[in-house]
Amino acid sequence: MPVLVMKFGGTSVANLDRIRRAAKRVGVEVAKGYDVIVIVSAMSGKTNELVGWVNETSPMYDAREYDAVVSSGENVTAGLMALTLQEMEIPARSWQGWQVPLKTSSAHGAARIEEIPTDNLNSKFAEGMRVAVVAGFQGISEEGRITTLGRGGSDTTAVAFAAAFDAERCDIYTDVDGVYTTDPRICEKARKLDKIAFEEMLELASLGAKVLQTRSVELAMRYKVKLRVLSSFEEQTDTAGTLVCAEEDIMESNVVSGIAYSRDEAKMTLVSVEDKPGIAAAIFGPLSDAGVNVDMIIQNIAENGVTDMTFSCPTDQVGRAKKALETAKEKGVLNFQELVADTNVAKISAVGIGMRSQSGVAAKMFKTLSDEGVNIKVIATSEIKISVLVDRKYMELAVQALHDAFELEKAD
Amino acid sequence: MPVLVMKFGGTSVANLDRIRRAAKRVGVEVAKGYDVIVIVSAMSGKTNELVGWVNETSPMYDAREYDAVVSSGENVTAGLMALTLQEMEIPARSWQGWQVPLKTSSAHGAARIEEIPTDNLNSKFAEGMRVAVVAGFQGISEEGRITTLGRGGSDTTAVAFAAAFDAERCDIYTDVDGVYTTDPRICEKARKLDKIAFEEMLELASLGAKVLQTRSVELAMRYKVKLRVLSSFEEQTDTAGTLVCAEEDIMESNVVSGIAYSRDEAKMTLVSVEDKPGIAAAIFGPLSDAGVNVDMIIQNIAENGVTDMTFSCPTDQVGRAKKALETAKEKGVLNFQELVADTNVAKISAVGIGMRSQSGVAAKMFKTLSDEGVNIKVIATSEIKISVLVDRKYMELAVQALHDAFELEKAD
Repeated sequence: MPVLVMKFGGTSVANLDRIRRAAKRVGVEVAKGYDVIVIVSAMSGKTNELVGWVNETSPMYDAREYDAVVSSGENVTAGLMALTLQEMEIPARSWQGWQVPLKTSSAHGAARIEEIPTDNLNSKFAEGMRVAVVAGFQGISEEGRITTLGRGGSDTTAVAFAAAFDAERCDIYTDVDGVYTTDPRICEKARKLDKIAFEEMLELASLGAKVLQTRSVELAMRYKVKLRVLSSFEEQTDTAGTLVCAEEDIMESNVVSGIAYSRDEAKMTLVSVEDKPGIAAAIFGPLSDAGVNVDMIIQNIAENGVTDMTFSCPTDQVGRAKKALETAKEKGVLNFQELVADTNVAKISAVGIGMRSQSGVAAKMFKTLSDEGVNIKVIATSEIKISVLVDRKYMELAVQALHDAFELEKAD
Repeated sequence: MPVLVMKFGGTSVANLDRIRRAAKRVGVEVAKGYDVIVIVSAMSGKTNELVGWVNETSPMYDAREYDAVVSSGENVTAGLMALTLQEMEIPARSWQGWQVPLKTSSAHGAARIEEIPTDNLNSKFAEGMRVAVVAGFQGISEEGRITTLGRGGSDTTAVAFAAAFDAERCDIYTDVDGVYTTDPRICEKARKLDKIAFEEMLELASLGAKVLQTRSVELAMRYKVKLRVLSSFEEQTDTAGTLVCAEEDIMESNVVSGIAYSRDEAKMTLVSVEDKPGIAAAIFGPLSDAGVNVDMIIQNIAENGVTDMTFSCPTDQVGRAKKALETAKEKGVLNFQELVADTNVAKISAVGIGMRSQSGVAAKMFKTLSDEGVNIKVIATSEIKISVLVDRKYMELAVQALHDAFELEKAD
C-alpha cells in the first residue's frame, strides 16, 4: 500500500482532545488506503519544561543526559496517539527512536540522521498494522545512547521517514495554514501560496519565516519529498495548506514568490581598513572563530589604500563581533580606524525562482523603495533572492510597498 | 570496588532540590569507596498523571502502549540525577531499562524480571564511572517492547540489581524512616525496628504495612540481599532506618516483632453447606475464577450433615464473591442456605519469627483481647503469624493492647 507521512507539531497534540482531532485526520488517510507513518512532537510546553530542568540542574550539561531527558516528551505523545488510533479500531503501535532504529551521528543535541532501516516497520505493515506512530526529534547513536536532532527536529524526522519509505507525500500539520507571500501580521494583503519551490522555501525559512525547520527542507529537496504544510485546526480540503515541491512541479509562478523580513539583523562597519590581499580573511576568520554568523558582506571601493568593510550579523552577536575584532586589532592581525555598529536596521528580502529567468527585479525593488523614500543601506543578492538593509522604522512600509509592487496579492 | 544499590522513591526525587539532596547521599557512599547503582522512581505525581492520560484515552488500553507511556517518568529522573551527580564531579551516567538491558517477561504492566546482564554497567565502572543511575520500574521484553513491573516496581528493580551485582546492601530511601512495631498513627508507643527478618517483613508487607513492595522482599529473601529501609528526609546515622535481613543476622529478637492491621477485610459466611468431600473445591474454585483473593478460611464442625463455612476477602471484592457463589448455587454445583457478609470487621495480626520456638503466643493474644472485651470472630495462624478478625470498632484498642502485652515498646 502507498505510504503517507503525517507530522503533528506540539500545538497539534497539546492535550488529549487535540490528539483525538489529529487521530481523526490520520483516520481519513487510512480510509483512503494509505499505510501511515505518524511523527509526533511532545505536547506543547513539555519540551520547554524538560529543557528548563536540565539547565537548572547543570548549566554546562552533558549533552547525552540532556538528550535522554528531553526526548521523553515525544514518547508520551507517541503512546497516547497509538492508543487513540486503537480506540478508533485502527491497528497502530508506537515506536521510539531506538526501536525503529533511527540511527544518527553522536552529535548529541544536534545529531544528524544517518540511516532509517525500513524492515521493522514494514514487517508490521505486512502483518496488518496501518499506522506506525513514531516519536519525533530522537534517534540512537552507534554507542546505544539516545540522541536528539535539535529543536524543530521532528520536521526533519518526518521528511527522513518520507524519503526512507518512499512516501507519496509528507504532510506537516502545524498551527499556521500554510506559507504566505509575506507575514499577514504586517501586511493584510498577504496571500497563502498553494505551491512553493524547495529553493524558495529554504530562503524563506532561513530568512525567518519559521514554518519549517531549514534542515527538513534541505532533506526534502535532496530526496524530492513532496512536503505539504497545513493547519491541524482548519477543515481539510484539496487546496489546504502549501505544497513545497520541486521547481518542475510548479507550472508557472510569479517572478517573486514572497517578501521576507528580519528585524534582528545589525549592520557593522569597519572604517578605514587597509586594502590588501588577505584582509577579508583577517576580518572574517576571527568572527567565524567567535561564532558570529555573518550574513551580508560589502566592500567599498578603496581610496588611498584604505577601504570600508560592512557586514551584517544577528543583533545579539554584536558584542561578540566587537570583541573578536578589537582583539584582532590588539594582536596586530588587523588594522582599522573605527568600528561602527548600527542595530537599528531591518533586512527585507524578495525571494523567487522566477528571478533566474527574468531581469529587472532588482531595479523594480530599488525603485519601489526609493519612491517610498526608503534609503537602502546594504544590498546583497543570490540567484533567487535580493536582500536589502533599511532603517528599522521603514520595515513595515517596505514590506507592504514591495508586496504591492510585485502584485503578490494576485494568485500565481 | 564493592557495589551499593540505592533506591529513591517518588517523594525523594519530587523536584530538583530533592534530587540534589538524594545526590548528596549518593556522594557520601561514593566517598566511602563504593561503586553505586542508583535506582530512581518518577518525580512524585508524574506516573499518576501519565496513567490518568492513558485511562482517559483508552479505558481498555493496550498494555504495551501503557508501558511505553508510563515508563517515561523514570527516564526524566534518571537523566536529571546523572546531571546532578556530574555537577558534584562524580562520574555518572543514566541507563534506561532497555539500555542495561533489564530483560523481562512480556506480561506488560506486571512484567517479571528474567535477567540483568552485568557487562554493560561493569565495563563502565571499569572505565571509571562511579554511579550508574538506572530508571526503575521498567525493562524490555524479548519482542523489544518496553515493559513495566507494576506499581512500586522500582523496589523490585533495586533488589534485582543488588542480587545481579552482588551488592553489599540495597538501601531503599522513602518517606518513612523505617519499619515500625505497628502503625504510629494509631499507637503512639510504636517503635522503629533496627532489624527485621525477611519472613516477618513479607507478612507485614502483605498485611498492609506499605513500606516495601512484597515482590522486592521475596526477591531479597531468595538472593539474600541485605535490604535497608530509611528516610531521605532525616539525617543519616549508623542506626538509621530498618535493616531487613536473614533470620541468622538477627541475634535475638522479641517473640513478636510487630502488630499489623487491615481494615479492608470482610467476613463471609455460607450457612448450612452440605458437608461432603469436594465441598471446599466447589466453594473456592468459583471464587478463584472470579478473581476473589480469599485470605482466612474456617470450617465449623458438621452437624446433621451440614456445616458453616467462613472466609475473609478484601471488602471491595464482596460483590464479586456473592455473585460467584450465587451463580454456583444456581448451576447446582453448590448448595447453601444463606450467604452472610460482614464488612464491619478488621484483621489484626501478630508477626514474629520467635513464635517458631516459643509457645503461648496465641494464648497470650487471645487472653489480652478477651480482657479488653474484644470478641474474636475468626482465627488463622501460620508459622510466624496469628491473625484474628474482630469488630472494626475495636481495631485501635486491639492493636494498642497487643502492643502493650508483647512489650513492643522495649528494644529487642
